[in-house]
Amino acid sequence: MLQLDPAFHLPVHRSPVQPSTYSKTPLRLKINTRYPTMTSQSVAILQEEVDKLRHELQTLNTDHPSDLADDQIRIADYLLARLTQLGVTEMFGLPGDFNLGFLDYVEDNKSIEWVGNCNELNASYAADGYARVKDGSIGVLLTTFGVGELSATNGIAGAFSEHVPVLHIVGVPSTSQQKSKPMLHHTLGDGRFDAYLKAAQQFTISQASLNNKRTAAAEIDRVLTDCVIMARPVYLMLPTDLVHEKIPAKRLQTPLNTQPQENDPEVEAFVLDEIMKLVKQAEEDIIILVDACAVRHGVKEEMRELLQRTHFPVFSAPMGKTAVPETYERYGGMYVGSISRPEVKERVENARLILSVGALKSDFNTGNFTYHIPATKTVELHSDHTRVQFAAYHGIGMKRLLPKLTARLQPLNEGAKLLSVPKFLSPVPQEDNQIISQNWLWPRVAQFFRPKDVIVAETGTSSFGILDVPLPHGAIFVSQILWGSIGWTVGSTLGAALAARERQLGRTILFVGDGSLQLTVQELSVMLRTGVTPIIFVLNNSGYTIERFLHGEQAKYNDITNWKWTSLLETFGGIEGKTSQSYTVRTKDELSKLLDDESFAKADKIQLVELIMEKLDAPNSLKVQAELSGQTNKYISLGLKTA
Amino acid sequence: MLQLDPAFHLPVHRSPVQPSTYSKTPLRLKINTRYPTMTSQSVAILQEEVDKLRHELQTLNTDHPSDLADDQIRIADYLLARLTQLGVTEMFGLPGDFNLGFLDYVEDNKSIEWVGNCNELNASYAADGYARVKDGSIGVLLTTFGVGELSATNGIAGAFSEHVPVLHIVGVPSTSQQKSKPMLHHTLGDGRFDAYLKAAQQFTISQASLNNKRTAAAEIDRVLTDCVIMARPVYLMLPTDLVHEKIPAKRLQTPLNTQPQENDPEVEAFVLDEIMKLVKQAEEDIIILVDACAVRHGVKEEMRELLQRTHFPVFSAPMGKTAVPETYERYGGMYVGSISRPEVKERVENARLILSVGALKSDFNTGNFTYHIPATKTVELHSDHTRVQFAAYHGIGMKRLLPKLTARLQPLNEGAKLLSVPKFLSPVPQEDNQIISQNWLWPRVAQFFRPKDVIVAETGTSSFGILDVPLPHGAIFVSQILWGSIGWTVGSTLGAALAARERQLGRTILFVGDGSLQLTVQELSVMLRTGVTPIIFVLNNSGYTIERFLHGEQAKYNDITNWKWTSLLETFGGIEGKTSQSYTVRTKDELSKLLDDESFAKADKIQLVELIMEKLDAPNSLKVQAELSGQTNKYISLGLKTA
Repeated sequence: MLQLDPAFHLPVHRSPVQPSTYSKTPLRLKINTRYPTMTSQSVAILQEEVDKLRHELQTLNTDHPSDLADDQIRIADYLLARLTQLGVTEMFGLPGDFNLGFLDYVEDNKSIEWVGNCNELNASYAADGYARVKDGSIGVLLTTFGVGELSATNGIAGAFSEHVPVLHIVGVPSTSQQKSKPMLHHTLGDGRFDAYLKAAQQFTISQASLNNKRTAAAEIDRVLTDCVIMARPVYLMLPTDLVHEKIPAKRLQTPLNTQPQENDPEVEAFVLDEIMKLVKQAEEDIIILVDACAVRHGVKEEMRELLQRTHFPVFSAPMGKTAVPETYERYGGMYVGSISRPEVKERVENARLILSVGALKSDFNTGNFTYHIPATKTVELHSDHTRVQFAAYHGIGMKRLLPKLTARLQPLNEGAKLLSVPKFLSPVPQEDNQIISQNWLWPRVAQFFRPKDVIVAETGTSSFGILDVPLPHGAIFVSQILWGSIGWTVGSTLGAALAARERQLGRTILFVGDGSLQLTVQELSVMLRTGVTPIIFVLNNSGYTIERFLHGEQAKYNDITNWKWTSLLETFGGIEGKTSQSYTVRTKDELSKLLDDESFAKADKIQLVELIMEKLDAPNSLKVQAELSGQTNKYISLGLKTA
Repeated sequence: MLQLDPAFHLPVHRSPVQPSTYSKTPLRLKINTRYPTMTSQSVAILQEEVDKLRHELQTLNTDHPSDLADDQIRIADYLLARLTQLGVTEMFGLPGDFNLGFLDYVEDNKSIEWVGNCNELNASYAADGYARVKDGSIGVLLTTFGVGELSATNGIAGAFSEHVPVLHIVGVPSTSQQKSKPMLHHTLGDGRFDAYLKAAQQFTISQASLNNKRTAAAEIDRVLTDCVIMARPVYLMLPTDLVHEKIPAKRLQTPLNTQPQENDPEVEAFVLDEIMKLVKQAEEDIIILVDACAVRHGVKEEMRELLQRTHFPVFSAPMGKTAVPETYERYGGMYVGSISRPEVKERVENARLILSVGALKSDFNTGNFTYHIPATKTVELHSDHTRVQFAAYHGIGMKRLLPKLTARLQPLNEGAKLLSVPKFLSPVPQEDNQIISQNWLWPRVAQFFRPKDVIVAETGTSSFGILDVPLPHGAIFVSQILWGSIGWTVGSTLGAALAARERQLGRTILFVGDGSLQLTVQELSVMLRTGVTPIIFVLNNSGYTIERFLHGEQAKYNDITNWKWTSLLETFGGIEGKTSQSYTVRTKDELSKLLDDESFAKADKIQLVELIMEKLDAPNSLKVQAELSGQTNKYISLGLKTA
């Protein structure tokens, strides 16, 4: 039979070992290794078929004598082995009756670390943050039946909305209990043992309810493959009795095929021709617009090739920030429709052809739907389809299409080099006061960032403010611009920091408002226990400032209780000065001094910086967005609220 | 037309003004006012019909000229008026885009106070706790589309499981946006605007998605009526544009009919005869067993009548604790199957007939299904059906049946008086050490309780330990024995304390473990802001002790980070000694001294008491339950975990 290097099967584009930033090694060498020629492509197709057949065969052969003899593995360990193959090193969640049996295997597992979280919502946020930073891997969440899993619903739905691969494992009653349906604790009391699964179907791309050892391995493989390829959450019900059941281990020798399938060659060729016709018409006046799904569906490397070989100007939507390094010389910054910088808006909207990669056109990602780019001059590349002007080509995915498009566009690079690109700069403004204003804060902290830092920005003034400043080479931007669940960044920062430590990236830096931090604050204690050392900037502006701009500027419902922010880390188990350090900063000078302090900047302990800011200050982009959004929500003045 | 006192329509049995404890006023007088004679019953039926017709008429007449002229009300205010009629005084939740418009009306409303919570799960727990203590009213939760509502899923499912009436109002995009389905923030990005509703259908008894002003009032009335009558959560989608729409206010003059409907007289008479046959066979050797639904479906008063007029011995299941005052001389204590006290087990299981009221036979409520009571000697009264031996009579509800059964049983009271009842006492054990043991703690704190105190016990050692001790006259026991979501009591205590203040009950006292408190800790700050002053006992036993007994006694996954518990209140905004006070107690003497301290006992500020307890100490009932439950979950020893 075929003997092939197992690494061949690994999702090259998302493999942890791949540098996700621009490398300096010779280009030609890369092409050969990265882009299978047609020959190696057909080998790949062949290999996929072989693996498929092997799996099907093994599914049927579970009880084959030769298997029973030796080489058996418990279902719990099979699952953990698959997760290890996908590069999973951390599992998030909480213990609860129905998952304790599985947790024994997790605790004994050498390659996966159990991270006990404070609650399930925070755990789901952490799994999401981990997946965003751990390229090529997935986030894993373990909860218990009903009470545990349902607390994570919002976190899982957010991962679905934002295309983040998260596996949600739920410890459920035994297979016999699921048949007899006794009135167990954690049930609805009416025998509907499938109610939680039905809810999960709304927010996960694929589900499996393991109910016998024969199909368990195939079911596990199915949801894991869907999770990686579709970059969406999946749901796995693990009954208390099945975790201990033994099945053949042989199947593990065939790694999961997590490569998106090949495009239909005939359709693909047709689409390429259609695109090239528009390229020709545009007389090379083309710009590239990169968005969320370029990151989520793992085409950063293909993008890198496209840009380096063609030199077309590239811009980014907010959710695509850092998909292309913001230090790249042909990068022009953020395009956010009508709230873009004037020079960006002018440049993007006047290009004769826009090549859009991985677009996710949500309100907050498009300046409230104010793109001024007609479909007639747009080509959209997506993970599972391609759009040329008004024509949609389903099943033509960008992962396979991009390298070929790059090859077709490369000859145009001389002309492309001449196309102008606005500079994305953000100088620190001179303000003749000491107030830490939004206008001043973001350019100032931008000077503090270092290459490979992971920058997490909470929905609100932070997620809008950070967009206006360029991030360093290799930096990773983590935010939730479509789902926008406040408090998400706190759990997410835990997961991101663990993944960053694993990937040996830079510091993890969080910007979160006082209102948002209150939702998920207890996760700070898990950061302390796991020993990650993020820098946490708490924007203390007395409440839900983004809501004030949306509506209810003076409303009491937008106020919150002011906490002793600098006591949080100690209360949650930090030893001030040793494992944690907290600061309150009230002026520009104080903040600059702190940022310039080397012992602060090296982030060798978890640090919390309370920034005293104005209640009604916000980045301009947020003000405009809120204005537009508030109108559509038909908020009317009832007097005091908007005084 | 008929002119009747509007109060007539109010759910007499659950009206806030009714004393829920035994009153001393003459019995006969009560009967006349409380139990409609057949005549007033037919009037009631007639009135129900009149109201139904009025509502239908008004639903059709929304745009009738006479209505347009004057007496118009905005839909937001209509909803708030209905809630006020139901005795709602607080609304829980968080602001979020899509509910800010409605919040303006809430903030301007005179009779309903907005309680801004720290997160939606905690808010849902608070609404649940409020509903449990505020007899005759409902809990109300307000969240925003997607990100807000989904964080509350576990809390709403818990209310469903435990029969608690909670209205979940969700601020959703405008009716036009729900048609055009733009990719708004807080959406799944795929246009499925109904996904959250579909999930809610699994955990609410009734849903309404308001989509036009004509049917809005009728829809609001429908879900509110279902909420009260079925004592389950309901779901209401409130679009941003409709909140401002004006509709006729006249409909509000007809209060909602929240009385369960009359039983079919013929079937009811038959059922009564069937029951009396068994009573006769039993030769009056009858005991009454009261459970959860007697409280949830509001038959406490009917129970009171039954007991006082018949004097049959009465026992309680864990979830029925305090449905009958535990100081009542004919009350024998807790029946929990095989983990009952021997004298209780013997007395209950040897009675010749068991009259079970509002049973909810979950594992933790029945000693893991170890009832030894054959159906042949059981009569079960439920909110919507009656079971006599093996025969089920659907539609025969206990609210209407109980008074008639009481009338039939009363003649037996002389004999019933002679039936023996074990005394439910729990003396403080003498232990020759200073360790605060589970055996010692509960009887000792029982001495500290006062009439009308609200006692909240977290799932775990607290919910099991508190069962062993009798609570004072008029005390209310709040726990979540079926759903068992750890952390629930912290939010629940906020709601319970607000309802207790409203009802002028005694102190609110919470017992919560260190592990559970970590899930929902931030809600302490909302207690501080709202000025409620619960006493919070934190059982610091180094982790999830209940899980250790279920499985993984020494497992790391059952450990938690130890916090500075006594710093929590100050960190969350308390002023130590003024608005809050914290204590750490390590010995029996220290705790006794504190409990005997009058300034502590008067609870005029929020107080937190950290109790240092043994990691592997638990009430005996928990040990037995965990043993039984662990077996069914097929936990096997993998070595260290259960060492």
